[in-house]
Amino acid sequence: MPPEWSSSSPELLLALDRTSRRPLLAQLEAALREAIRTGRLAVGEAVPSSRGLARSLGVSRGLVQECYAQLQAEGYLVTRPGAATRVAVGAVVPPARPTAPAVKPRLVADFRWGVPDLGSFPMQDWLRSTREASRTMPTALLDYGDPRGSARLREVLAGYLRRVRSAAAEPEHTVVCNGYAQGLQLVLHVLADRGVRKVAFEDPGSPTTLRATAAAAGLDAVPVPVDGHGLDVDALAATGARAVVVTPAHHWPTGVVLAPERRLALLGWASRHDGFVIEDDYDAEFRYDREPVGALQGLAPDRVVSIGTVSKSLAPALRLGWLLCPPGLAEPVARRKHTSDRGTPTLDQLALAELIESGRFDRHLRRMRVVYATRRSALLDAMAEHAPNVAVTGLAAGFHAVAELPDHLDEQAVVTAARRRSVGVYGMARCRAAGDAAPPRLVLGFGDVGERAVREGIATIGDLLAGRP
Amino acid sequence: MPPEWSSSSPELLLALDRTSRRPLLAQLEAALREAIRTGRLAVGEAVPSSRGLARSLGVSRGLVQECYAQLQAEGYLVTRPGAATRVAVGAVVPPARPTAPAVKPRLVADFRWGVPDLGSFPMQDWLRSTREASRTMPTALLDYGDPRGSARLREVLAGYLRRVRSAAAEPEHTVVCNGYAQGLQLVLHVLADRGVRKVAFEDPGSPTTLRATAAAAGLDAVPVPVDGHGLDVDALAATGARAVVVTPAHHWPTGVVLAPERRLALLGWASRHDGFVIEDDYDAEFRYDREPVGALQGLAPDRVVSIGTVSKSLAPALRLGWLLCPPGLAEPVARRKHTSDRGTPTLDQLALAELIESGRFDRHLRRMRVVYATRRSALLDAMAEHAPNVAVTGLAAGFHAVAELPDHLDEQAVVTAARRRSVGVYGMARCRAAGDAAPPRLVLGFGDVGERAVREGIATIGDLLAGRP
Repeated sequence: MPPEWSSSSPELLLALDRTSRRPLLAQLEAALREAIRTGRLAVGEAVPSSRGLARSLGVSRGLVQECYAQLQAEGYLVTRPGAATRVAVGAVVPPARPTAPAVKPRLVADFRWGVPDLGSFPMQDWLRSTREASRTMPTALLDYGDPRGSARLREVLAGYLRRVRSAAAEPEHTVVCNGYAQGLQLVLHVLADRGVRKVAFEDPGSPTTLRATAAAAGLDAVPVPVDGHGLDVDALAATGARAVVVTPAHHWPTGVVLAPERRLALLGWASRHDGFVIEDDYDAEFRYDREPVGALQGLAPDRVVSIGTVSKSLAPALRLGWLLCPPGLAEPVARRKHTSDRGTPTLDQLALAELIESGRFDRHLRRMRVVYATRRSALLDAMAEHAPNVAVTGLAAGFHAVAELPDHLDEQAVVTAARRRSVGVYGMARCRAAGDAAPPRLVLGFGDVGERAVREGIATIGDLLAGRP
Repeated sequence: MPPEWSSSSPELLLALDRTSRRPLLAQLEAALREAIRTGRLAVGEAVPSSRGLARSLGVSRGLVQECYAQLQAEGYLVTRPGAATRVAVGAVVPPARPTAPAVKPRLVADFRWGVPDLGSFPMQDWLRSTREASRTMPTALLDYGDPRGSARLREVLAGYLRRVRSAAAEPEHTVVCNGYAQGLQLVLHVLADRGVRKVAFEDPGSPTTLRATAAAAGLDAVPVPVDGHGLDVDALAATGARAVVVTPAHHWPTGVVLAPERRLALLGWASRHDGFVIEDDYDAEFRYDREPVGALQGLAPDRVVSIGTVSKSLAPALRLGWLLCPPGLAEPVARRKHTSDRGTPTLDQLALAELIESGRFDRHLRRMRVVYATRRSALLDAMAEHAPNVAVTGLAAGFHAVAELPDHLDEQAVVTAARRRSVGVYGMARCRAAGDAAPPRLVLGFGDVGERAVREGIATIGDLLAGRP
């Protein structure tokens, strides 16, 4: 036995707990891994013979041999014929270079955008749906799948979106993807292949995302102004773009609903110019004043690509979304999806189908509508109390609002001053194509901010928002 | 109560089982959904008042109200102020257009490629790892994550690949992706952005995938011959390509291991031409004769991008893979990943980390090595018995082999004749850049073919393979 092992007895180095319900083999493996990782067993060091270790631990030799075989498979140990089993050279990862620790200041409230209440994610429902999906899943579905996505999920989604979004959804023209960003990426690539050169986007909107995604697809991205009725369709026509990305149900970030005459004008534009409307149906699930506005896709399924996601309704980390494609685009979008990544993880897709079909998805949404409505009221109350001269708009749906600051205020100065008081707020400049900060506006997200934090946050910075000295 | 309801009593239509452990609410919801989906409750039909239904079912009115509210949220029912609750117009999906049923002939054996034994997927281990990952996962990880992937998985992977693949892996330069195809797509896009115009690939190899992926990234794909020592590096240099995709540990599909002098020549080429080697480390887990050949990446981490996947070790449906990037490429690859899809699903990543760390991943691989070794022997035995004049090569690793048919045979004719006897075999023509079928070769996958099916399949077509009349 090499000296390192005799200096301290293996029983001490590899303590086994015989009162534990954990199998001795698992205990021994874990103890050996730990000893190697921490360097208590050094690289190159020989481990005791299986016979010797078995004797000193009072276990069977077979158990030690099984343990060594497993750790060899994991790369911790190496065996050469006729030589002792040793700790492998690669067994210990050199310590990572220290990276600058992420300085996350503790904020009173952080009104960041686009994130739902993460603490409310229905993890138990998700795990249960995954388990149930796994039970009924045919083995063949563990193979590469249909690049359009699981047939079951596409059927469930199509039915669901028909019911709750008045979408003209067909399973055959539905493509499952890994969230909105991928959906947009896929469509833009397909449109580029069809000769589209320019894609228009709403201003204000998401210029950074749109520009990066368009550039990756080889397209130019051009802004089109949004007014109190939604996208200016005449301005769109003037750009010469043949595709446009819109948020008709609840404009991001102003919250304006695309007016009925504008909807018709937009669809008229599309049919006259062989154009495509890409509908970002991002937060339709959360509407407070009335029934959600139906998806634009339902009115013109041959001209509108509707992209949906569970990032707002469940959690961004799931990376699940879908596209409702015009019949002619479904196949090329699926082909592009196939080239991109061969399809979305199947078990996750089946779990979502199960979650929706069981009613647990809607039960969660019903719960969350109440949660967000409470935070929304808290925001309105707090603003009325602490900054009564600031209009709060765009609150008909979703979980963000726009605070229209007095004109003389400097947007960025308010953001900076609020941060000094440990309140995170964000200016609309980032949503504007030209990056300009006038008129001064804040976009206040309250998806992941508790009711109390909403009140405290606004109370802390009310004077800044109101422009009181 | 509308006539349809009185004609058959609600108790019959919505039978509740009071002996079941399933809550009455869940039963009532399921029964109502079912009645609507099957058309027993027609679109537009009014449902009974909550009071009336509660009385006739002998349940509380609150329970019926809760049920109606849930089905309203799911879009099956609509309520207008002052009017009865009715079945929603969108509640019933029109029956899907009948598609041609997938004619899957029952085969004696299907020696298709690239699929592991799907029935051996360790589903219980996967579910358990998912559950354990979910328990320890901080809520913040439900948000959009680091586009490089979960810090924990990158750390676990780096350690693991150092140990079992002798890779020079660093968590900072590891990017998690959705399988090999996406990994390749990301790298090729990044190389295209750096001015690379041409990517070389092995011939034979995967011309279809390479050409499609290269085209999507705007690159030309050029074939380079592979001989008995692996890729012909002189021929590579002559192409003028600045990137090449290789399978050094076990060439796809011939099974040749890249010879030591060729490895050095390849790395020399890369450093002289500012070139990049993309290593497809696709089946290194399954090596039968000796220790796996170490990853090429370990020799030149600044020139080699190594792409790994669990598609062969676990299942393609998981869509999980990783890239070990040269330091200078990690950041642009991560940026491209961000634009593509914002990152890989987090819970899946954490489950994989848990699976590896717990030793369950390697325990599965050890089991599968035995399974595949048995099938491999069965294949060799059956070939020796039924087609002794056909050399079977490329069997040092993985779960496919090459059958070198007698020269006078027509590859495609053998494939067609075998299929007529209900045995699926596939010619190497599909792996050749020029699509030529000479010399005649079959690539026999046995990953998802049971031992008995291997024997029966070969027995069924032995005379065809041997070229016996």
